[in-house]
Amino acid sequence: MDTLPRGPFPDLDGHDRAVALDAADPLSGLLDQFVVTDPDLLYLDGNSLGRLPAAAAKQVRHVVDHDWGDRLIRSWNEGWWDAHVRLGDVLAPIVGAGPGEVIISESTSTNLFKLAMAGLRMQAGRHTIVTDDLNFPTDNHVLAGVADVVPGGRVVTVTSPDGIHGDMAALRAALDDDVAIVSLSHVAYKSGWIWDIGEVTSAAHDAGAMVLWDCSHSVGAVPVDLAAHDADMAVGCTYKYLNGGPGAPAFAYVRNDLQERFANPITGWWGHAEPFSFDLDFRPAPDIRRVHVGTVPMLSLLAAEAGITMVADTGIDAIRAKSIALTSLLVDLADQHLAGEGFSLASPRRAEQRGGHVSLAHEHGWGITRALIEQAAVVPDFRAPDVVRLGLSPLTTSFLDVHTAVGRIREVVRSGGHLAHDDDSSPVT
Amino acid sequence: MDTLPRGPFPDLDGHDRAVALDAADPLSGLLDQFVVTDPDLLYLDGNSLGRLPAAAAKQVRHVVDHDWGDRLIRSWNEGWWDAHVRLGDVLAPIVGAGPGEVIISESTSTNLFKLAMAGLRMQAGRHTIVTDDLNFPTDNHVLAGVADVVPGGRVVTVTSPDGIHGDMAALRAALDDDVAIVSLSHVAYKSGWIWDIGEVTSAAHDAGAMVLWDCSHSVGAVPVDLAAHDADMAVGCTYKYLNGGPGAPAFAYVRNDLQERFANPITGWWGHAEPFSFDLDFRPAPDIRRVHVGTVPMLSLLAAEAGITMVADTGIDAIRAKSIALTSLLVDLADQHLAGEGFSLASPRRAEQRGGHVSLAHEHGWGITRALIEQAAVVPDFRAPDVVRLGLSPLTTSFLDVHTAVGRIREVVRSGGHLAHDDDSSPVT
Repeated sequence: MDTLPRGPFPDLDGHDRAVALDAADPLSGLLDQFVVTDPDLLYLDGNSLGRLPAAAAKQVRHVVDHDWGDRLIRSWNEGWWDAHVRLGDVLAPIVGAGPGEVIISESTSTNLFKLAMAGLRMQAGRHTIVTDDLNFPTDNHVLAGVADVVPGGRVVTVTSPDGIHGDMAALRAALDDDVAIVSLSHVAYKSGWIWDIGEVTSAAHDAGAMVLWDCSHSVGAVPVDLAAHDADMAVGCTYKYLNGGPGAPAFAYVRNDLQERFANPITGWWGHAEPFSFDLDFRPAPDIRRVHVGTVPMLSLLAAEAGITMVADTGIDAIRAKSIALTSLLVDLADQHLAGEGFSLASPRRAEQRGGHVSLAHEHGWGITRALIEQAAVVPDFRAPDVVRLGLSPLTTSFLDVHTAVGRIREVVRSGGHLAHDDDSSPVT
Repeated sequence: MDTLPRGPFPDLDGHDRAVALDAADPLSGLLDQFVVTDPDLLYLDGNSLGRLPAAAAKQVRHVVDHDWGDRLIRSWNEGWWDAHVRLGDVLAPIVGAGPGEVIISESTSTNLFKLAMAGLRMQAGRHTIVTDDLNFPTDNHVLAGVADVVPGGRVVTVTSPDGIHGDMAALRAALDDDVAIVSLSHVAYKSGWIWDIGEVTSAAHDAGAMVLWDCSHSVGAVPVDLAAHDADMAVGCTYKYLNGGPGAPAFAYVRNDLQERFANPITGWWGHAEPFSFDLDFRPAPDIRRVHVGTVPMLSLLAAEAGITMVADTGIDAIRAKSIALTSLLVDLADQHLAGEGFSLASPRRAEQRGGHVSLAHEHGWGITRALIEQAAVVPDFRAPDVVRLGLSPLTTSFLDVHTAVGRIREVVRSGGHLAHDDDSSPVT
């Protein structure tokens, strides 16, 4: 297959701005802490699967060779048993939570199920879950499944006016006195829209509802500040901006004062007050442990420690500052160089409403995505029907990467190379 | 801390029998395929965490360095996406299931929750789950949680007469016309009692109930034969006799003809018919995929491939034959050398009723367990209040290991070394 010019593109406007931004970037050295096997590859999918921290590779080898291979079952007493609680505490400051409020637990979907069920049970007499159509569909599915289990349960889905922005007025209008829970993605998976946690939480609380945030697309890229806004519950991925590794277990946050009333519908032994008493009666753990269910996939859990720690050490404010600069550069360059090629912005234009990725719509979005991967060494992802989604993970993306990617995207479209990919069979991501 | 004589103990009766059994053992070479860092250690806890296959260590390195580090998100299209279905098919023959009937999914507890909920929904008009007090307590907890969610749901717990054997007559007596599901551990975690899958399934079906087996303590050690007995559903660990690694995801089996009616209560995107359509409406996958929920912890999943494959290749009948010979040797030697030291058998005496481990009760069971680990390089585990549980994984345990372990146990008790450990603080396993 033909390859196209890879750049850099010094004559493409914006090059000097990118170089200057890199020179001033306090986070530019962080890429050295990651494994990079192909320096030519522009990896713009760190919002889906973050790059491999070198420390994670080392950690996994230790867990396999030393913990499993040598220490065997004794490792449960030498660090494994509490690792999901310990790493929850490492993650906590990234989402503005305190010690004992976060645990690394099952998948995001399963965590959402547990928290939504427990929330409905805490809200006796209320039956409605409010969400929106910007949410990641699995969340809509899980919430509908929860409503289905609970007598009288129902889901109300607020509609975005344009598929890009959330509608706060419509959300407020949905908050009647039957609403038990408001559950939204903090950052929308497709457009990158940021719901204002403070504003939504406050409106929900005024209506007597709880909030349950999905922070999968914000944690590690956007400040979350759960406790500051008195948010009730939250879940989120660790394998995106936290670089936790493929399918790394998700986190769950339950505000400290709610934990005593939190009744996990899946009453597994890891949520028991005394798991090794082997009582036939379930007594929930007095703390965040009650949110968890069964044995943690330990290799995947401990692989996530390096990335979570790196984000916590770097600090979410510095990360957000770079993220805004990255997405702003991309929006400007897309306006300048890609709008004429048929692209339109499918993310909020205002930086404060936009998370860590930028979506560009194009009628040949699918073919372009395939051509970028196959011919141009750019890895974005595609979200049907027409969105090329460009994730700019602040820890591993340079400003020159953004500029070069825009150049390569333009080359692809101008070459017509994407037309040959319009009918590519559909891979899974 | 003092160490005690480690053996071998050629003068201890049974030595020649053990040596002869090893010489005739067709599986004796398999240990070479595992990582063994301390040849002196008698690891008798492979029923809790199986040893590390060398191929698993190699596989994990490949997944981390190549799949995650180099291929990144593209790996989802290069093997990751279907791995939980593919490995389910590798596991299927080990439990007597066909292709498309097994998936590697969440934890055992979460799988049990999903299957029990779905089962209750299939059994309209029936509200009772029957289980027993030999079951692993997390199963009792999860089943109680399921009953709690479903209107009118309740759990009936059949009592073992002696804490060792199951009571088939009592189970039959519990099977009235309100029983929706019978859910038992195929092999009891503590005594090793084997429920007869054919007999129980047939009795349940005669009463209009479904069966939901937990095969955690049988899979990889005892033939399971789910399909041959028309068993409806099952779950089980992969980290015990399948050597899948710490917290490796569990399996779930749903008989082929039930899958169309199987309604997963946790409707996550991995169970969707078209996950990448990002539809807001949930349409379940037409096959076993609908049993799964969210993104698989990929390092932990693929680490399990080596062990599952090794068991499938070895064949469960050969494994069971060795297992019976191992536990029979241990029972005989315990009768001969340990009964006089205060031990009593806490497992079924008849080999056909006994799984892959042997439990020995002793009033100082806790101190003995600690002393064995600390002073005698024997790793069993302890189950309250008084059971020393000795797991004899057929792939990694020799007959001489069993003989030597009995010698070391006797040395510990005779030395009185265990008395110093009676008040050891309680580690977690």
